[in-house]
Amino acid sequence: MHEILSSTQNPKIKNVLKLQEKSSERRKQNLIVFEGNRELGLALDAGFKIRTLFVCEEVWGNERIEGVNTKDIFHISKEVFDKIAYREGSDGLIIVAEPHYHTLETLKLPENPFLIILEAVEKPGNLGAILRTADAAQVDAVIVCDPRTDIYNPNAIRSSVGCVFTTQVVTSTSDEVLEWLKKENITSYAAALTATEFYHNTDMSKPCAIVMGTEATGLTEKWLDGADKQIKIPMRGKIDSLNVSTCTAILAFEAMRQRGF
Amino acid sequence: MHEILSSTQNPKIKNVLKLQEKSSERRKQNLIVFEGNRELGLALDAGFKIRTLFVCEEVWGNERIEGVNTKDIFHISKEVFDKIAYREGSDGLIIVAEPHYHTLETLKLPENPFLIILEAVEKPGNLGAILRTADAAQVDAVIVCDPRTDIYNPNAIRSSVGCVFTTQVVTSTSDEVLEWLKKENITSYAAALTATEFYHNTDMSKPCAIVMGTEATGLTEKWLDGADKQIKIPMRGKIDSLNVSTCTAILAFEAMRQRGF
Repeated sequence: MHEILSSTQNPKIKNVLKLQEKSSERRKQNLIVFEGNRELGLALDAGFKIRTLFVCEEVWGNERIEGVNTKDIFHISKEVFDKIAYREGSDGLIIVAEPHYHTLETLKLPENPFLIILEAVEKPGNLGAILRTADAAQVDAVIVCDPRTDIYNPNAIRSSVGCVFTTQVVTSTSDEVLEWLKKENITSYAAALTATEFYHNTDMSKPCAIVMGTEATGLTEKWLDGADKQIKIPMRGKIDSLNVSTCTAILAFEAMRQRGF
Repeated sequence: MHEILSSTQNPKIKNVLKLQEKSSERRKQNLIVFEGNRELGLALDAGFKIRTLFVCEEVWGNERIEGVNTKDIFHISKEVFDKIAYREGSDGLIIVAEPHYHTLETLKLPENPFLIILEAVEKPGNLGAILRTADAAQVDAVIVCDPRTDIYNPNAIRSSVGCVFTTQVVTSTSDEVLEWLKKENITSYAAALTATEFYHNTDMSKPCAIVMGTEATGLTEKWLDGADKQIKIPMRGKIDSLNVSTCTAILAFEAMRQRGF
């Protein structure tokens, strides 16, 4: 019989709440929190170091969990679990792990890369949805410029269904990214409603990146001027109605189609 | 100076709440409720009959609103508005209107139609996102089979940003739709992970429909067997990670690309 943490005042539990709430705390401690067995598996496959696994057996059952050292596994009561779980239908596993903060320098790219660049994405849900697309299309990296949302925000991890672990995600400044693209000979296509060229007439078969702005205001002048070309999706409807994650998926899958998947 | 409804107990206000909450009430009264000036404009353009417009001038200001009869406009206090507005950042307009319930028989289609068929879509948010795609790609109609969600659910209208008004939306049973497709010579492509043919190798330039299942369980046997062909999107990632609205957008825009937009 193992010990069960049953107090929400336990320092380990209080720290989970702190890590969930504040990106500054995640940075300071170099730790992130997430939930779920699928997410755990993806993180382990990607080489993330798991520091603590909290198991609520009342929810999870007693199936063995592979890949985590026994000494790092703590059992928690249902009351504690309900306090720290933020997702409905959560499966009883809460994980504390060390994040991977990629940089432009540490990025590993193939010879003919395809990248998604996001300028200042605001909503964790949009970032999560774009990471799902990046996983499905096997985009080589997602670069988030001047981020206003932490890539390891619990809502971003959750809405990415773990794809934040399967894709290389880099955060940097717009200036550094623009310079880096030039140096690496990667053509940048800025998605803009003011563009005259359509995405499906654009050659995305060579090293390139699509650059997406925020839903509210689109791309800034820096990217509209700095990118090699502006492209757009034909919007034939009554309103400019597509959201940024849908636009990103349409562009990324067209690139993959041109590349023969 | 006009009268201002300031009691949340006013029968008109209580009825708005009732219409928001219950699809059975919407059906019985043949009325729907939605919010926002953009949505109002799209509904008016599409010929929807507006029955009542509630204006909260404290939020909206005093700009004139076109297209609604003065006798149907009621001013409401901020307190009443806060009670009946369900959207953050709402602009002060709440509208009660008569819905359009299209049927397969009343549907107006061009010679070479492209349709989206949804089997039992569950989440209003997904329906809304698909309607945005339908608007942007000018899909000729969206057919919802055996719906578990009312197409005029307030969350569906909201997440469609009004595209529920700009697109013909039909609800029917799967059996009736399958029969109708045959009669109309419209080829049906069922999106299924088990398919062997890829969507981008599929001819979508002739009269056709894509058929999408629920996120949790995909399409039922009825559609997998009943559709003319199964198609899939290559999923090259670690998990089958795309949501149904993203998949729908990728397929619909590939169809439009093949048709030369």
